[in-house]
Amino acid sequence: MAEKGCLFIVSGFAGAGKGTVTKQLVKEDPDIRLSISATTRDMRKGEAEGVDYFYISKESFEQKIKEGELLEYAKYGENYYGTPRSYVEQVLGEGKDVLLEIEVQGASKVKAAFPETIRIFVTPPSAKELKRRLVGRGRDSAEDIARRLSRAAEEAGEMGEYDYLLINDTIDQCVKDLHAIVAAERMKAKKQEDFISMIKEQLEETSKGE
Amino acid sequence: MAEKGCLFIVSGFAGAGKGTVTKQLVKEDPDIRLSISATTRDMRKGEAEGVDYFYISKESFEQKIKEGELLEYAKYGENYYGTPRSYVEQVLGEGKDVLLEIEVQGASKVKAAFPETIRIFVTPPSAKELKRRLVGRGRDSAEDIARRLSRAAEEAGEMGEYDYLLINDTIDQCVKDLHAIVAAERMKAKKQEDFISMIKEQLEETSKGE
Repeated sequence: MAEKGCLFIVSGFAGAGKGTVTKQLVKEDPDIRLSISATTRDMRKGEAEGVDYFYISKESFEQKIKEGELLEYAKYGENYYGTPRSYVEQVLGEGKDVLLEIEVQGASKVKAAFPETIRIFVTPPSAKELKRRLVGRGRDSAEDIARRLSRAAEEAGEMGEYDYLLINDTIDQCVKDLHAIVAAERMKAKKQEDFISMIKEQLEETSKGE
Repeated sequence: MAEKGCLFIVSGFAGAGKGTVTKQLVKEDPDIRLSISATTRDMRKGEAEGVDYFYISKESFEQKIKEGELLEYAKYGENYYGTPRSYVEQVLGEGKDVLLEIEVQGASKVKAAFPETIRIFVTPPSAKELKRRLVGRGRDSAEDIARRLSRAAEEAGEMGEYDYLLINDTIDQCVKDLHAIVAAERMKAKKQEDFISMIKEQLEETSKGE
């Protein structure tokens, strides 16, 4: 199909499981690609260039910012993280879908640049469950957990701006639900203008031929 | 859930298979109901009151028109067909979804009355295939088929107004695709305002409690 792909953003509370769910989706669906972010932080053990991140220097990152080469970016501590525009545009142009996993502020910036972006917010079924998961993964100190929960309370104010709310109760169901959203968006009439023109023409010819 | 249900309209070319697909969907999903039309035509063998249609007199049909009790109606030959408003409103109010199978003109009228209506257009993959199916079902004369194809050519002009295009290549895949649309629409953030308020409150309490 010559039609452009769909751009999906997945955001959600830390601990909501969005990483697990999006990774599973792209594994199962060859027509959607996970966008790879650029970062200035060092590569960690087990990571690979162009798989986990594009690892670039601070200078080239700042150059990219200047040139408008990043759809969105943020600085955490000393390190930049951002979404390269060229990769996203290239994949969409090939008629494949792209999925960005980014936080709420970045999502608004991408939406402004690509108004047809479809935004999905992943949330656990309750705040209690979110806390249970944050404690359960054993990565964060009590202080970190408190900070994440207070961040989540702030982010919740933005949930209503998203197109879809994906309640992550079990991973399997959540992946299925995400597939349903992706499938439905591909069926949007505005994504099938080529098909509409084709069948219109065919029908006119067929009905004249009768 | 106290949230109102979604209203779906399925339209499509005669011979596109929309009847088969919608019947299968409602069989598999207990949370969606097929709306039952009212008609003034006689009950046919094998049909049942309240299953195929609500069979009413011409006088009560015209009374319902006057009272605004029909979301849309049309007259074919001597007979009226229409969608009772009260049934649709009642089911939506119970938080269940409603599916109407109606033609293009009726769909615009319902959309005007319920702006949140989700419209789905069912089409075979090509005009050739549509003709093959019309011929294959052996119901129509050559003249009828010519008329249906010319009607389809006209209706094709409205396809772009629909939200979704459902290409019916095989019934099984088409039913799956329709499930995906229904599932996705239920996940729309605007259909989950109660959930958003709930988790917002919970998160505020949980993060205060830390």
